[in-house]
Amino acid sequence: MVGPSIARADAPMIIDTHGHYTTVPAGLRTFRALQISNLGRPKKSALAISDDEIRTSLEKGQIRLLDERGIDLMIFSPMASAMGHHFGSATISRHWTEVNNDLIARVCGLYPTRFAGVCALPQSPGVTPADCVDELKRCITDLGFVGCNLNPDPSGGRWSDPPLGDAWWYPIFEALVALDVPAMIHASATCNPAFHTTGSHYLNADSTAFMQIFESTVLQDFPTLRLILTHGGGNVPFQAARYRAIGIMNKWPAFESVLQRLYFDTTVYSVEAMEMLVRTVGVDNVMFASEMLGGVNAIDPKTRRLFDDNKPCLDALAWLSPDDQRKIFETNALRVYPRLRPIVAARPDAPRTATVGGE
Amino acid sequence: MVGPSIARADAPMIIDTHGHYTTVPAGLRTFRALQISNLGRPKKSALAISDDEIRTSLEKGQIRLLDERGIDLMIFSPMASAMGHHFGSATISRHWTEVNNDLIARVCGLYPTRFAGVCALPQSPGVTPADCVDELKRCITDLGFVGCNLNPDPSGGRWSDPPLGDAWWYPIFEALVALDVPAMIHASATCNPAFHTTGSHYLNADSTAFMQIFESTVLQDFPTLRLILTHGGGNVPFQAARYRAIGIMNKWPAFESVLQRLYFDTTVYSVEAMEMLVRTVGVDNVMFASEMLGGVNAIDPKTRRLFDDNKPCLDALAWLSPDDQRKIFETNALRVYPRLRPIVAARPDAPRTATVGGE
Repeated sequence: MVGPSIARADAPMIIDTHGHYTTVPAGLRTFRALQISNLGRPKKSALAISDDEIRTSLEKGQIRLLDERGIDLMIFSPMASAMGHHFGSATISRHWTEVNNDLIARVCGLYPTRFAGVCALPQSPGVTPADCVDELKRCITDLGFVGCNLNPDPSGGRWSDPPLGDAWWYPIFEALVALDVPAMIHASATCNPAFHTTGSHYLNADSTAFMQIFESTVLQDFPTLRLILTHGGGNVPFQAARYRAIGIMNKWPAFESVLQRLYFDTTVYSVEAMEMLVRTVGVDNVMFASEMLGGVNAIDPKTRRLFDDNKPCLDALAWLSPDDQRKIFETNALRVYPRLRPIVAARPDAPRTATVGGE
Repeated sequence: MVGPSIARADAPMIIDTHGHYTTVPAGLRTFRALQISNLGRPKKSALAISDDEIRTSLEKGQIRLLDERGIDLMIFSPMASAMGHHFGSATISRHWTEVNNDLIARVCGLYPTRFAGVCALPQSPGVTPADCVDELKRCITDLGFVGCNLNPDPSGGRWSDPPLGDAWWYPIFEALVALDVPAMIHASATCNPAFHTTGSHYLNADSTAFMQIFESTVLQDFPTLRLILTHGGGNVPFQAARYRAIGIMNKWPAFESVLQRLYFDTTVYSVEAMEMLVRTVGVDNVMFASEMLGGVNAIDPKTRRLFDDNKPCLDALAWLSPDDQRKIFETNALRVYPRLRPIVAARPDAPRTATVGGE
């Protein structure tokens, strides 16, 4: 059996809701390179990656770190920066996305108690998101995935598609609701020299997506839609008063009520930011996540821990009750990702919340 | 004499470093409308605005609020959202910018103790910033302005120009250094439906500009250049740990050392954000500013004050010493904007720091 032996007792299960397959075997890069070679006649070449290569790619990286940090399970999706929806045509995006999603399914098959799959979508700038619905359904129903990533800017930094509040996106929202899965808003690499992928484009995408939702009727039009803002929401907690003011000036639904309909992950890396995030968003709408490994893969000289070893930043919030902690580490994720429950329930150390169907 | 009679004693002078002429008389809008009519044959039509119209536009708005809030002087620039560098050609941008800067000069002439001028630049997407140098010089040397606003994205949300670290921008940085004036980084309205002007584009521009500077050698190449990030730096204080990590991963100069070379204004509107801003950036690099009026022109139900009445958010930081407060309200501004000193020294209540040439 894979996975640490955890003395659970009353401690919550620790679910990390934001991990990407950043340590892919070289075979995946070869596939991508051949897409450039075959730009004029796109074809889906065979992927040459063995199960052993997958195991090697994970056991020294993500799995070792999950074990060291006492994290039970990670929600795992294709490498975000490499989604590269802006590269090539919709056909090229579809081939690439399918191969990446299939690879995530193999990871989950090899480590069914440690990883739950989240898919990328075959987005392409200027192409209707309706064209992504089939791949979403395949991943959820055939591959057993629990959600998807949604790129609010498939152009990679030109922002040429309509905002998320536009009916343009509604086919994918309808499919998310029908499948009862959430979407994690996450940009990919930028091809615009004005931006830095992990330093500005990701964070701009988080905040921009929030504002697009805030000024739209998406949440009213889809009362059961669940959207997750990553990286602590970009600037949302810090600029909360500005957003509150803009909402009041425009007579929109109150900022606070919009926060209650959204979910934020904890991929911020200081106690101060964690405190501001949880206080602003509230314990019912925050999910633990580390985004390891890749985005902030360095040791913080202040703490002597890797930056993405951020559970201690949450543990430092002494005002969180045990029940609050359980929400952030476990039950919010099971509520937002209901398809996680059978995966968690199959674990030998399954918490009661998973086996009895949530809170 | 205009201006409140302030019992100064040992209290600092209060300088608001971020105000735009958002209450312009209708004549300026007429000028702009005629630019659309004459797109094919741009011409600089006459501006029909009387001094009385200027007085009326300010005395019920900015000046009343400055008086009510005990703010002595405001650094005043053309309406930011209306800079609209993306509209029309470089010639159209130049005509519009000149008229706006001339109008700010008239404001400062009418109220020399209350407003100090900061100019817009005649930027245009794809056009070298070198073409802005003449207007910058005119505003500083002929009109007596103390700095300029610099739009990092003249395209208005397409981000089609090179990042600030590119040599593309160096002619304007050279001119800023030669004139010993700072630039306040500030976007204009967006023409991209993906963004909301004050809710996402401004904040994205702040954070993106920070990242562009962070990953460049601008600060080494211009050791005396002074750049100001507005709106509390967008997401910079909240995402500080992420930036620190990215800097370490890339072996760039330390995040903290970059902060020490930049200036941040306090246009955030909660005690929590103010605390995070001042703690992250440090008291030597923060300047008081309210951005009134316009951006957050509503009453905060939590405080029953207008959101942009944000001096109480700073006053609430009980750990700031009187010396710290003086830096944030007065002396940092006099250091960043040295051309402010003669303007301040001419006031009957001039603080010692202005008349003796700074700290």
